[in-house]
Order: sequence, then structure tokens, then C-alpha cells
Amino acid sequence: MEKHQPTPPYYAVIFTSVKHPDDAGYSEMAQLMEEMVSSQPGYLGHESARDGIGITVSYWESLEAIAAWRQQSQHRIAQSMGKTSWYERYTVRICRVEKEYRFP
Amino acid sequence: MEKHQPTPPYYAVIFTSVKHPDDAGYSEMAQLMEEMVSSQPGYLGHESARDGIGITVSYWESLEAIAAWRQQSQHRIAQSMGKTSWYERYTVRICRVEKEYRFP
Repeated sequence: MEKHQPTPPYYAVIFTSVKHPDDAGYSEMAQLMEEMVSSQPGYLGHESARDGIGITVSYWESLEAIAAWRQQSQHRIAQSMGKTSWYERYTVRICRVEKEYRFP
Repeated sequence: MEKHQPTPPYYAVIFTSVKHPDDAGYSEMAQLMEEMVSSQPGYLGHESARDGIGITVSYWESLEAIAAWRQQSQHRIAQSMGKTSWYERYTVRICRVEKEYRFP
């Protein structure tokens, strides 16, 4: 997110997940989704870390932009495969970023 | 966050950070803060992952609860040491959780 520094208010999607030990096909799909999301209207960037639990936070200009990506056809296929094959559990939180502080 | 499943709206603080390679004293302070925050009024839980970038998301009942923890005296000392000793950079985002979806 260092290239994009939007001023609040903007929106964040917090995606926390635990994957199954066998996640065949996951990394290829994650790579594809990463490429596709980058050209979505209203997409501002994302940050991701995983050790045991995975946390991905994506940033968006509006709730409408989030909804459009959620409905995007290849993304819907990925969501469906996530439920049947990759994720033991996940939570998606749609948030409005009210304030931010940066250091330095 | 599995024990606590608050219903939106509630609040999230997204803390993303990159640490210096030498972070002497960090893990002890992180452990202490984890113990202290758990008894803060309005604290609902947190989730954390680090690989290169660190992402910690804490959940709160209100903006007032977030502000009180930010001003808590030992936490202020930790924040100060974070700036002088541990963090190359960080961003704190204060968010209102509007909606959430869970699987399964």
C-alpha cells in the first residue's frame, strides 16, 4: 500500500482465514486473483501476511467498488473453490477507514 | 477472535508494520501489551500474522475504547519505544466494521 496513500474516509476489507493443510491449486488462484484485482475500478492496494492464520487487507474507494469485485465472475469461481477446497474457515469484514496515523 | 463474535457495527484497528532487523526487547513488550490489552474495557479480541510485513487487527466496542487504550500509560511507553527502537515504519487505521461474512 505504499504507492497509494488515500485520505480517509475510504474502505478496507479484512479477510482472515485458516486454510486446510492440503491446498492444491490455491497459490495459482491467489496469483491470478492478485493480477485481476489490480485492474478493478476503485481498488487502492492490499497487504497480506500469513503464519498459521492468514490476514489480507484490501483497500477500496467505495462500498460499490467492493461489491463489484465480490460479484466479478472469476472471483466468484475463486470464492466457490475456496469454500469447497482451500479454507477451513474465514471471515470477511467490510470496514470504513475513519482515521489513520503513520510513522515515520 | 473466535470466542468473541460481535455483531456489526463495531470497530477495528488495523496495525501494519515493518520492523528493524534488530528488535531487541520487542517480543517481551509485545507479550506484556497482549496481557494488558485483554483487560481493557471495550476490547473484543485481536488477530495477528507476520511474514515480512506484520498485520495485527484488534477489535473494539467503540472509538472511545480505542482512544483509552491509545492513551494508557504503559502502552504509551511501548509506542514510544516502537518509534525509537523497533519499527522502520507502521500505519494505524481506525475503522468501523460495517458488515461481515463468515464461512462456514
